[in-house]
Amino acid sequence: MRASVFIATSLDGFIARTDGALDWLPGEDGTEPPEEHGYEAFIASVDVVVIGRGTYEKVLTFGGWPYRRDMAVRVLSTRNLQPRPDLPKTVEVASGSPGDILAKLERDGFRHAYIDGGKTIQGFLDAGLIQRMIVTRIPVLLGSGIPLFGPLHADLRLRHVGTKTFAPGLVQSEYEVENARSHA
Amino acid sequence: MRASVFIATSLDGFIARTDGALDWLPGEDGTEPPEEHGYEAFIASVDVVVIGRGTYEKVLTFGGWPYRRDMAVRVLSTRNLQPRPDLPKTVEVASGSPGDILAKLERDGFRHAYIDGGKTIQGFLDAGLIQRMIVTRIPVLLGSGIPLFGPLHADLRLRHVGTKTFAPGLVQSEYEVENARSHA
Repeated sequence: MRASVFIATSLDGFIARTDGALDWLPGEDGTEPPEEHGYEAFIASVDVVVIGRGTYEKVLTFGGWPYRRDMAVRVLSTRNLQPRPDLPKTVEVASGSPGDILAKLERDGFRHAYIDGGKTIQGFLDAGLIQRMIVTRIPVLLGSGIPLFGPLHADLRLRHVGTKTFAPGLVQSEYEVENARSHA
Repeated sequence: MRASVFIATSLDGFIARTDGALDWLPGEDGTEPPEEHGYEAFIASVDVVVIGRGTYEKVLTFGGWPYRRDMAVRVLSTRNLQPRPDLPKTVEVASGSPGDILAKLERDGFRHAYIDGGKTIQGFLDAGLIQRMIVTRIPVLLGSGIPLFGPLHADLRLRHVGTKTFAPGLVQSEYEVENARSHA
């Protein structure tokens, strides 16, 4: 079982403003079509998405479900999700430690998890359970917001796989986590 | 008068561990010679270095003065520096707002300041007085430490000038600050 992160951040490491706003992302103001920065190839390699409750609630406000309707999605929460007839049946709640969650997914036949959302990414990273990170830097400093990274019990050494640039000034770097645990 | 930043950070945005340690920088453990990543060309374009008192004190612990002996250096402090016969006469104390400091430097005939040290960089960025940033990402997550960036009164929009990669996995991006003030 592998787990990966694919995310955009400001140069100062925020994935959203404090209120969750994404207006600083290119294309979010509607003036230019969003460019494709490898997301399609990435999501095609994934068979399950793991998101936190906060990210899930935020995604629902966007209108429309952002994942393929046959994509398994696990929402980390100790509470049940409110039934939503507009959501695919592939969305389920999950709880437990990052290791427990991945072990259960592996038993259920999944092989590559996309870990998304700030707190969720931080928890899986600190547990040593992320093998791969693709981070796209947006050329803006926000000064405050929801941080991508958080405290760790120990350094995580990374191997730089490659860096690509995209208009307008995006820098996308891919890393493997050298001291990730192979949890299962 | 222009002001630039040239600095290395961990992928999670720290320029030093909480205690100031730089052991995570490539070459700092003595096992490999430090590679030259454009610093020589950068420092040759600069005629004055502006550092905070904390960075100055830290630099003194390294043994040896890290700048050319004819390089003007301004140490931001409200207290005088302790006389050190081993330091060049080009080192002086300075105080005031970032705008005051740069205006004084310009009156003194300087044209390009290298702004260094976490708090100092943050203060000059928030004042809109940094025009250019060269940030080198080291492939490690530290989890905590002294942050490169800090709070801002307003977004700073950046123009990506270019990105280079260096062994072992360093990613160096250069940005111009689009909404920097031309203060003088």
